[in-house]
Amino acid sequence: MIPQDKHLQIGSLLFEGIDQIDLTGPFEVLARIPNSTYRLYGQTGDMVRDLKGLRITPDAAIADAPQLDILHIPGGRGQEALMENEEVLGWIRQQAAGAHGIFSVCTGALVCGAAGLLKGRRATTHWASFHLLPYFGAIPVNERVVVDGNWIFAAGVTAGIDGALRLAAELRGDDAAKAIQLHMVYAPEPPFDSGTPETAPADVLAQTKASIAAITLQREATARRIAAKLNIDIA
Amino acid sequence: MIPQDKHLQIGSLLFEGIDQIDLTGPFEVLARIPNSTYRLYGQTGDMVRDLKGLRITPDAAIADAPQLDILHIPGGRGQEALMENEEVLGWIRQQAAGAHGIFSVCTGALVCGAAGLLKGRRATTHWASFHLLPYFGAIPVNERVVVDGNWIFAAGVTAGIDGALRLAAELRGDDAAKAIQLHMVYAPEPPFDSGTPETAPADVLAQTKASIAAITLQREATARRIAAKLNIDIA
Repeated sequence: MIPQDKHLQIGSLLFEGIDQIDLTGPFEVLARIPNSTYRLYGQTGDMVRDLKGLRITPDAAIADAPQLDILHIPGGRGQEALMENEEVLGWIRQQAAGAHGIFSVCTGALVCGAAGLLKGRRATTHWASFHLLPYFGAIPVNERVVVDGNWIFAAGVTAGIDGALRLAAELRGDDAAKAIQLHMVYAPEPPFDSGTPETAPADVLAQTKASIAAITLQREATARRIAAKLNIDIA
Repeated sequence: MIPQDKHLQIGSLLFEGIDQIDLTGPFEVLARIPNSTYRLYGQTGDMVRDLKGLRITPDAAIADAPQLDILHIPGGRGQEALMENEEVLGWIRQQAAGAHGIFSVCTGALVCGAAGLLKGRRATTHWASFHLLPYFGAIPVNERVVVDGNWIFAAGVTAGIDGALRLAAELRGDDAAKAIQLHMVYAPEPPFDSGTPETAPADVLAQTKASIAAITLQREATARRIAAKLNIDIA
């Protein structure tokens, strides 16, 4: 475990078209980690909108970020544009090289993959993009939270809350994570058992897949371009 | 159920010092309810900061809101200031009178109480403020989600996700809610069983209570003032 008296710099990447709860779920945890500073970084300091329009303003631009101890990369449709944005990819590479830990949520994993950071790594992402992980050289693991070395991957969207609590426990011990969980009253009671492709009703799954068919095709095309760039051979 | 072909106006109240996930948890659901418009309303149109600094900008000011079909009132420490803010309380009263449903999350219930809307109503709120519900004439119910007539109350913080999914099902049917749950990959796996005062370790609960003792005292004093104003007799 990292020394308890070391003050931690924790940062999340914020971008246009983020799926806001990939950020705001972990935010509730990361902002409460003892002896730490938590900030949101955008490509610029300007306000962005999440994919459903939530207006969030970062604390600073990535160029002004210190070396982070914990780097958090959320996902959401806007991840597509980031995957060929060399400024952002370069920042992620540089931060990841010096970070104590990297925390990927949802399709944030695709961005980390595009940065060339997932080769040989056990990883997960949103179920709708899970089949794309091999394009980045990653080993897909169908679990809600996957830990590989100093990386933590949370699967889709709300899995970020579970991943962030795991991260808090890694950093500051179980009791610190439990106190955050108590504050958040995180004792979930989902009204349905429809949170995964394995448990959702077949027609709900089929309709959901149809509704995201266009973005899934786009993500596949992007993944193929990235695989070629990274010299990853997809049979 | 409300007619499926009726376009719904859904609105959340955004304010300085909100606990952001009281808003952003439900946001992920409310922004995906079929045939609806979802907007955030602030006392002004200006950016506010959540109690840990997240910068969120509303879509419009409350004065510019249409009559809402669904009114969502989140909580967080900033709720204290709202409880004696006649402009906001008046807006809540007026909206609640014409709304199809009202959705209170966390200490948002105290604000609704201060608006005089909880008399005789079964309600819940964050565990640390649960004992204050009688000051507003409410009947405290220690459940994660409480439905009373056209009101839905979610207990603390992340309970808003469960409450919002219940609301989505009420409004647009179970399958619509299940599709949203699948998108959100809401199949939670909390790493600890520490999300309620009943399950958290005793020392974690004691430390958490100590850390919020000052705001709890302040909330008690405010509740007493409101009770006097509402002519509610607390024995």
